[in-house]
Amino acid sequence: MALTVSPLALPLPALPPVAGVRLGAMAAGIRYVGRDDLVMAEFAPGTTVAGVFTTNKCPGAPVDWCRAALKGGKARAVVINAGNANVFTGRAGAQAAKASAEAAAKLVGCRPREVFLASTGVIGQVLPAEKLTAALPGLYGALSESNWEAAARAIMTTDTFPKAVTRTAEIGGETVRITGIAKGSGMVAPDMATMLAFVFTDAKLPAALLQAMLSRGVAKSFNCTTVDSDTSTSDTLLLFATGAVKHPRVPAEGGAMLKGFRAALDAVLHDLALLVVRDGEGAQKLIRIDVTGAVSAKSAKRVALSIANSPLVKTAVAGEDANWGRIVMAVGKAGEPADRDRLSVAMGGVWMAREGTVVPGYDETPVVAHIKGREVDITVDLGLGSGAATVWTCDLTHAYIDINGSYRS
Amino acid sequence: MALTVSPLALPLPALPPVAGVRLGAMAAGIRYVGRDDLVMAEFAPGTTVAGVFTTNKCPGAPVDWCRAALKGGKARAVVINAGNANVFTGRAGAQAAKASAEAAAKLVGCRPREVFLASTGVIGQVLPAEKLTAALPGLYGALSESNWEAAARAIMTTDTFPKAVTRTAEIGGETVRITGIAKGSGMVAPDMATMLAFVFTDAKLPAALLQAMLSRGVAKSFNCTTVDSDTSTSDTLLLFATGAVKHPRVPAEGGAMLKGFRAALDAVLHDLALLVVRDGEGAQKLIRIDVTGAVSAKSAKRVALSIANSPLVKTAVAGEDANWGRIVMAVGKAGEPADRDRLSVAMGGVWMAREGTVVPGYDETPVVAHIKGREVDITVDLGLGSGAATVWTCDLTHAYIDINGSYRS
Repeated sequence: MALTVSPLALPLPALPPVAGVRLGAMAAGIRYVGRDDLVMAEFAPGTTVAGVFTTNKCPGAPVDWCRAALKGGKARAVVINAGNANVFTGRAGAQAAKASAEAAAKLVGCRPREVFLASTGVIGQVLPAEKLTAALPGLYGALSESNWEAAARAIMTTDTFPKAVTRTAEIGGETVRITGIAKGSGMVAPDMATMLAFVFTDAKLPAALLQAMLSRGVAKSFNCTTVDSDTSTSDTLLLFATGAVKHPRVPAEGGAMLKGFRAALDAVLHDLALLVVRDGEGAQKLIRIDVTGAVSAKSAKRVALSIANSPLVKTAVAGEDANWGRIVMAVGKAGEPADRDRLSVAMGGVWMAREGTVVPGYDETPVVAHIKGREVDITVDLGLGSGAATVWTCDLTHAYIDINGSYRS
Repeated sequence: MALTVSPLALPLPALPPVAGVRLGAMAAGIRYVGRDDLVMAEFAPGTTVAGVFTTNKCPGAPVDWCRAALKGGKARAVVINAGNANVFTGRAGAQAAKASAEAAAKLVGCRPREVFLASTGVIGQVLPAEKLTAALPGLYGALSESNWEAAARAIMTTDTFPKAVTRTAEIGGETVRITGIAKGSGMVAPDMATMLAFVFTDAKLPAALLQAMLSRGVAKSFNCTTVDSDTSTSDTLLLFATGAVKHPRVPAEGGAMLKGFRAALDAVLHDLALLVVRDGEGAQKLIRIDVTGAVSAKSAKRVALSIANSPLVKTAVAGEDANWGRIVMAVGKAGEPADRDRLSVAMGGVWMAREGTVVPGYDETPVVAHIKGREVDITVDLGLGSGAATVWTCDLTHAYIDINGSYRS
């Protein structure tokens, strides 16, 4: 099925090299015909790594592999394929993952546990590791500092546009770069649209610090997005720090020296996560949901996700129907503290309902104009406390059903 | 929008009188034009009542009213309207509910708290109680023992067929009847397709016993069904027992004398719940999900609901794609104990995946034939314990988006 590019797509930015990273893409014929489907990146010696993975209890073999490899904290390469997720493939799947890592390690001259893996595509078919290992030497020979766009394109599955973000920051007066590429339709996403993201920096940072910053950043970015409430078996986010820029040594606890770096990393994660939502399967509108006045930030996030995952809210936005009653319903079903008679709902900055009923003299005109746009803002104030959260999602359209009702057959 | 009748519809059965119940329907012009939208039933003196309501934290005014009225355990009438849910309507909504109950109580000659109310329709518009109270005297004058079909039709909103079930049972040698009518698309359902169900029996049963039997029955029937994971603000299930049949007195704890009655009540609740799923918005297929081998029955039900609510599983069934990978994904995202390498998945009785990988020599042919039918059976064995549960849902189709993206506008 030919997919038209999401109307919410953003253009790929210019992607300068990240010191210490060489990468490339090629067609290994794992599933797709006539397009790149295999990516490899090699990292300078001393590169540290952090990772966050799916919470799904049936993870793919590459997720198992990465979780084990992450304990070492060191990375020399990552190998990513699109078209086959290597999930629910038993012992054969684990062997395919091991063979892939060993083949890459031999080329790079490192231990297999310094090679990270990610796969995305159909579930339940064993990854043809021989195709992957046969392609690796040629791919390795062609790695360069400048293949970012090719890599961003090669990891796509049902994605309609390639996704990359880059930022710079200063550490002790030296400029470092952070570049991320991603594919998928949500951290919470379809099996053929698993979320994979890879972020690369030339800063020199210990693995434990890297992991702490990544986990914090993910909580505010990827974990605040949802496309369809389904959690992939392969979601993977890896952050590699090559240490190629010779900035002053960062203390183990990070601290003030990393203020700019943290902000840039958070921006990269935030923008990458939103690119994924912008390419949500069938998405026509980007929806931002702000919840305030909750008893806690955690409670606010749960309420926001209940709204974001409600098929009725998502279809109403798709139909450009400013149906605030469905937002009230979604707040009420979240199971979090909420008082119908203190609840207020706004869309596009216009308060529609307040204190348990419609706002007197409510005029729908500006709200209807707002919901006809590409970006829809929903605000809910629970009127109970100071907990707040923001979550992003997309609308639920016919194209979602087209893509997911007919993909595999 | 004209809705075509669900292909999963069942014909309305013959509905004999239930002793002690007189009912009727009429057009009150609350929202719909040219069709009945108001139902009233009057019960013999001494009628007891039990009820189960939405868990949504933003319930409608009629739900508030019923919860308070239920404390008395006695009922003389129920008044139901379609087209306006009287939800999120503040003080005016509560007053509209009170005025409706008072008007019905005056006609019947009872206390307002012996009148039960249910409303279904749009959220956020105050119920025009004056239209309702103006229509009630004419409606009351025309009540009869035989208006069951008219009542089942008048409570419909986005329903495509009327829903009723009837059974008989013996209590101490006397035959009693249990008849239920329902509307909606799920206990967990759209705002315009709130689930309402009313069950009537001529047995003589104390309110506390009635409530215990209803709560038990709902856990195995309505609460094992889902259409789209959204919980209405108005879901209401009421059970009235008129006591018009003079059977031997039932002890307070029920016991063996009620064995046949319990089974008949459970059958009515089960069949009514499945009628609602059969009319799920846009449903083309009825999906039954059996989960076995869980650590507990509760855990099994959570896993089954995770599968039933997964948009990816539902769109795959709609597309007649026997995509067991998505079932594995939905098991894994449930957050319940599950071991990828002990998990087995079957469709239509054919095991597709076992012990963490595809069944050797798996032949998709019989499964493809099964999924092309109207009723699709999914079985998951977790291989961990003896917990089991069964849940019913429907597929997710374009019609769901048509209905919910354009209803109100």
